[in-house]
Amino acid sequence: MPKGDHKSRQLVTNTSGFNITLGDTQPMNLDNGAQFGPFDIAYQTYGILNAEKSNVILICHALTGDQYVAGEHPVTGRSGWWDEMVGVGKPIDTERFFVICINALGGCMGSAGPKEIDPKTNRPYGLEFPVITIADMVRAQKLVIEQLGIDQLFCVVGGSMGAMQVLEWASRYKDNVFSAMPIAGAARHTAQNIAFHEVGRQAILADPDWHGGNYMEHGAVPRRGLGVARMTAHITYLSEAALHRKFGRNLQNRAQPSYGFDADFQVESYLRHQGSTFVERFDANSYLYITRAMDYFDLAAEYGGSLAAAFDGVKARFCIVSFSSDWLFPTAENRAIVHALNAVAADVSFVEIESDQGHDAFLLDEPEFRRVAKGFIDSCAEQRGLGRPDR
Amino acid sequence: MPKGDHKSRQLVTNTSGFNITLGDTQPMNLDNGAQFGPFDIAYQTYGILNAEKSNVILICHALTGDQYVAGEHPVTGRSGWWDEMVGVGKPIDTERFFVICINALGGCMGSAGPKEIDPKTNRPYGLEFPVITIADMVRAQKLVIEQLGIDQLFCVVGGSMGAMQVLEWASRYKDNVFSAMPIAGAARHTAQNIAFHEVGRQAILADPDWHGGNYMEHGAVPRRGLGVARMTAHITYLSEAALHRKFGRNLQNRAQPSYGFDADFQVESYLRHQGSTFVERFDANSYLYITRAMDYFDLAAEYGGSLAAAFDGVKARFCIVSFSSDWLFPTAENRAIVHALNAVAADVSFVEIESDQGHDAFLLDEPEFRRVAKGFIDSCAEQRGLGRPDR
Repeated sequence: MPKGDHKSRQLVTNTSGFNITLGDTQPMNLDNGAQFGPFDIAYQTYGILNAEKSNVILICHALTGDQYVAGEHPVTGRSGWWDEMVGVGKPIDTERFFVICINALGGCMGSAGPKEIDPKTNRPYGLEFPVITIADMVRAQKLVIEQLGIDQLFCVVGGSMGAMQVLEWASRYKDNVFSAMPIAGAARHTAQNIAFHEVGRQAILADPDWHGGNYMEHGAVPRRGLGVARMTAHITYLSEAALHRKFGRNLQNRAQPSYGFDADFQVESYLRHQGSTFVERFDANSYLYITRAMDYFDLAAEYGGSLAAAFDGVKARFCIVSFSSDWLFPTAENRAIVHALNAVAADVSFVEIESDQGHDAFLLDEPEFRRVAKGFIDSCAEQRGLGRPDR
Repeated sequence: MPKGDHKSRQLVTNTSGFNITLGDTQPMNLDNGAQFGPFDIAYQTYGILNAEKSNVILICHALTGDQYVAGEHPVTGRSGWWDEMVGVGKPIDTERFFVICINALGGCMGSAGPKEIDPKTNRPYGLEFPVITIADMVRAQKLVIEQLGIDQLFCVVGGSMGAMQVLEWASRYKDNVFSAMPIAGAARHTAQNIAFHEVGRQAILADPDWHGGNYMEHGAVPRRGLGVARMTAHITYLSEAALHRKFGRNLQNRAQPSYGFDADFQVESYLRHQGSTFVERFDANSYLYITRAMDYFDLAAEYGGSLAAAFDGVKARFCIVSFSSDWLFPTAENRAIVHALNAVAADVSFVEIESDQGHDAFLLDEPEFRRVAKGFIDSCAEQRGLGRPDR
C-alpha cells in the first residue's frame, strides 16, 4: 500500500453520511411513556465491516458533538471532533475497525430532533418533540445496529454524554457489547451538573427570539440565549488551570484596560467567540432536549437505586477513564462506576489521566490517554480474535 | 445591664442609614483617569465610637451585599447579611466596637451608582457612570472615614470582594489600618472568575429589557438577564458537595420526572428562586459595574507586578481566612497573599477552615470561622489597648 495515502485509506464510505428510517413498522417505546415513530436517524461510518461483523466500534458523541468523528466535517469544513482518536493507525484504527457514530436522537445533524420535520405534521417538531432520555438515545442506536445486521458491538466508546450512553449500552444490552470504554463520564448527573444546564436553558428561554420554541416559524434564531448557554457550559469544560495557562489576565489587543464593557480580557474574547460560533452549528431547542436527557440520567435509578444492580450480569470488559482536572465529571464519579462494576466482579480497569485540560481533555491532544485507549482496544481485539495491530 | 435586652443594646444609631456627599469641593481621582464628584455615599453604623476613635471596624461588603450587615434590613425586612458575625457578643461585638459598613461606590443601596441621579444632569447616571475599580471604592471609603474624623481603622474586614477591599486598604493606606482580615479573597481575579462574570454580563446585555443600559427611562427591568446572571454566579458560590447535600437529584414536589422543561429538580427550583428574588433587590447596571471592578482587581499589577511590593511597609496585623471547599476564591489564592506578606515580614496568620459550604461559607453558620475571627479581633483589641471582652 502506498505510503502517505492515508486519506483514501480512511474509507469513509459516504462523506455526507447515512440516513435510516426507524419505527415505521413498530414505533419505539420512550421512557416518558409515549410511542415514537417513524423517525430518521443519521449516522456516519468509517472503515470496512468484516465478514463476521465482529469489528464494529460504536462511538457515542457528547452533548454538542455529532456523527462526524474524523476527516472533514461536511458542515463546518473543519476536522471531525475526534480526529485525535479515530483514523488510520490511531487508537480507533479505521483500517482494522468498522466505526459507526450515530447522531443522537434529539440532535440537530440529521437525526430526529426538534428542528427536523415531523412526518406526521410535515412541520418541524419544535417543542412537540418528546422529551427523551439517554436510554431512548441508546434504544434508537440499538435499532440502527440491528438494521445493519450487527449482533454484537466489539466496542462501545464515548466521552461525557457519550460515556453515559456507553454505560447504558453495557447494562441494557449485555449480550451485545464485547467491550466498553466510558470516558470522563458519570452514572448520574449531579446537582451541580443539573444546575449549570438549567442556567443554559433559562438563558435560551429568556431570549425573545426563542418565541416559545417556535423560532423557526418566525425566521428567528435565539442567538444571544444560546450563546450565553454555550459560554457558561464552556467554562465548565475547562479547568481553572487551563484557563490560567491559556489566558491568565492577559488583555486582548491592548496594553491598558479600556475601563468599559468591551472584551478587555482575552478570556472574555475567547468565550464570546465560543458562544457566537456555536450558534452557527447548533440548534437551541436541541440544546434544551439533550441537556434535559443528561439531567435525567441516573443509571442506578433505572435499577432500583443500585448501580451494582445495573451492572449485574454484565459481560463487557470495561476501561473507565477520568482526567485529574475534570471538575464537571470528576474522578470520584468515575470511581463510583468502577466500584459498582467491582461489586459484580466485572472485568474492569480504571485509569485517571493526569491532565490540566479539564473535562475537554478527552477531545484534546492527550498522549497518555491515547496510549491507554489503544492498549485497551488492542487487547480486547486480540481476545475477540481480531488479531494484533501491524504496529 | 438587663438580660435579654440585646436589641436596644445593638445601637444602630439610624436604622435607615446615613448619607454623605463627597467630592464637592474637590473631585475624586478615579483609576480610569477621570475626576468624579460630587457624589453621595451611603453607610450604616452599629455601636458607639469611643472618645479616641480607636474602636472602628470597617466592614467591606461583597458583590451583592450592602451596608446593612446586622439587624433588620430596611428594604428586604430580612436579617442583615452578616448577622452571624456582627452584634452583641458576636465576633464583631457592637458593644465594644463602632462598626461601619459603606455601600460600595457603583452599588445600588444609596451610594453613587448607575441607578442614582447624576447631580450634574439630574438624570440617572446609567452607563454614563464611570467604570470604577476596587481601589476607587476604597478611595471613596477613605473619604467617608476622614469626614468622620477617624484617622486609623482598628480593623478592616470583609469576604470575597470585601477581602479585595481589605487588601487594597492595607496596602494603600498603610498608616490607617491597625488590623486586617481578608476572608475568602484573592489578590487578583483569575481567568475563571472573569469568565463567570462575563457570562453574567452577557446575559444582562442580551436582555432586550436592558435597552442599552437605559431601562429606567423605558420603565423596564432586565429581569431575565439579571436572573440568569445571578443563577450562574450562585452556582459558583456553593460547592458541589453542598449542592449534593442540599438537593442531590431530588425532585421538586413530584415522585416522577415530568419529562418537560419545568423545574423538575429541587436544585432547578432553588436556582430560579435565587434569580427571581435577586432581581427585586439589585440593579442590573450595578451588577455590570461591580463585576467589572472585581475583574480589574490585580493588586500586584498596581505595584509593578509584585504582590510583595504591594505590601512593602505594611503595618497592619493580618489574619487571612479561606474555606476548603471554596473553588471560586480557593485556598491557593489566599495562600499567595500569605506568601507575599511573609516576604515583607508582615504580622500574618492564616487559617483554612474545613467546610463543605463553598465560597458562601463566610456568610453562613461556621462556628470554627467565628472562633478564628473572634480570637483575632480580641487579640488585636488587646494590642490596641481596647481591653478584653467581658466574656
